[in-house]
Amino acid sequence: MLKGIAYHQDSWVQSDKLYVHISDLSIHRAYAVFDYMKEKKGKVPWIDAYLDRFFRSLNLAGIGITQTKQEVHDLIHDMIRQNGFGISGIKLLATGGYSPNGFTVPDQSNFFILNYKGKQIDPVIYQNGIVLIHDDFQRPNPEIKTTQYFNTAQLYQKMLKHKADDVLYHHHGIITETSRANFYVIKNGGIRTSGGHILSGITRKNFLKTFKDKYPIDLGDLYFSDLKNIDEAFITSTTRGVVPVVKIEDLLIGNGEVGSITKKLMAQFNDKY
Amino acid sequence: MLKGIAYHQDSWVQSDKLYVHISDLSIHRAYAVFDYMKEKKGKVPWIDAYLDRFFRSLNLAGIGITQTKQEVHDLIHDMIRQNGFGISGIKLLATGGYSPNGFTVPDQSNFFILNYKGKQIDPVIYQNGIVLIHDDFQRPNPEIKTTQYFNTAQLYQKMLKHKADDVLYHHHGIITETSRANFYVIKNGGIRTSGGHILSGITRKNFLKTFKDKYPIDLGDLYFSDLKNIDEAFITSTTRGVVPVVKIEDLLIGNGEVGSITKKLMAQFNDKY
Repeated sequence: MLKGIAYHQDSWVQSDKLYVHISDLSIHRAYAVFDYMKEKKGKVPWIDAYLDRFFRSLNLAGIGITQTKQEVHDLIHDMIRQNGFGISGIKLLATGGYSPNGFTVPDQSNFFILNYKGKQIDPVIYQNGIVLIHDDFQRPNPEIKTTQYFNTAQLYQKMLKHKADDVLYHHHGIITETSRANFYVIKNGGIRTSGGHILSGITRKNFLKTFKDKYPIDLGDLYFSDLKNIDEAFITSTTRGVVPVVKIEDLLIGNGEVGSITKKLMAQFNDKY
Repeated sequence: MLKGIAYHQDSWVQSDKLYVHISDLSIHRAYAVFDYMKEKKGKVPWIDAYLDRFFRSLNLAGIGITQTKQEVHDLIHDMIRQNGFGISGIKLLATGGYSPNGFTVPDQSNFFILNYKGKQIDPVIYQNGIVLIHDDFQRPNPEIKTTQYFNTAQLYQKMLKHKADDVLYHHHGIITETSRANFYVIKNGGIRTSGGHILSGITRKNFLKTFKDKYPIDLGDLYFSDLKNIDEAFITSTTRGVVPVVKIEDLLIGNGEVGSITKKLMAQFNDKY
């Protein structure tokens, strides 16, 4: 839940009073980039990696902000200290700015730092696993963290119907990622995750680093048609670490229960969540 | 230029004071649809076709508004009467609404009617033609008028450099449309425009109806590699009707001047613009 104070341009603003003029290009042209990291007790794990990715997105998108990486780093810590949520999500958001005609790109962008008050994660997701729905979709510009989630938002009623947690993207029969996480399968003791056309997840990077010498890990194409033959599946995300996937729409993964290797991965990786 | 009064939910608001809370899903998830039509002296040509398309977009996007088509029709006329611009653009915009966590879709959408004060079109675009740049891009969900123009906004500096008017989309070697218009080529006296994977332009439909018995018109694939062999090119759009295209980045179309058939088409079609 968006709460407490937020940062907009050069000021702190109560987030319930944080309004954007209707002419903003994020509204008319989806011209915006963002990033999202997690606070736990005043600390922000891997904050530098998130800041690097955000500034890379800005650069590739052609959106400039006046703050330096160090200034944004300090503003984030200032904000979470002021809000004192303990567990929270932190969103950096930069839009193309106010455009009087709705498409010409102005010189000045709009930059926001938002704080979402969180709570302890319900352990049931780790115990029982989650359900995904799927959609034929390739994220445009996967190297940039854009706001292009129209397809996922459009599938919201379908997600509710399936009690699903997220949407698994695939295109031309090849699985890439979910809308908010990276996706992995386990077959015959080996882990495979998509190697390309995906958003480069910070948690994915840390996961791969943690387990590269402990399990065979293959970065290659995941075929949608192969989901019926895999033993286990899971996702990794900033907010929740490793989370088992037990069902994709009506297809049970393995026997539909959380797999034994996924349990070991959670035990070794999820202490930060 | 966005000016005068605008409509938001159930009220008239001065557009310079029309603010949206930061939690809106158009900002975070590009979850919004819109449509755009033109007023000329208090009249809105083909308003019913635009309203039909907007309501079709809403339906496909899963975004509901409380107003009926007739009510939106009346609100549009009420707004342009109050603003009295004479020449203006009218934008209908509906977003997924306010979402406290930035991704869950709420029950209530946000609906806006905006008025952009226009001016007489500079005749130089018809006399000299316009320049386009091009981009390898396929609009996702072309059957819905979404706000997914990130790629076009990102190319804004390149557009300035080429003094270009718009971006021509092509994908796998096949041309679809420009970001704000439909695209046509003329070769050996026949007109060809893309038949699929495009936003269904209202002006395109009227153009095809007007000229179907006067010229050979082919709705088929336009190959990007064939641009060097065509005689003439033009676009059609809501705001400006038929506009000649004389250059695509560094490639001159024909001899780089406005073609003779395009001149005839403009003479017969552009009296409304």
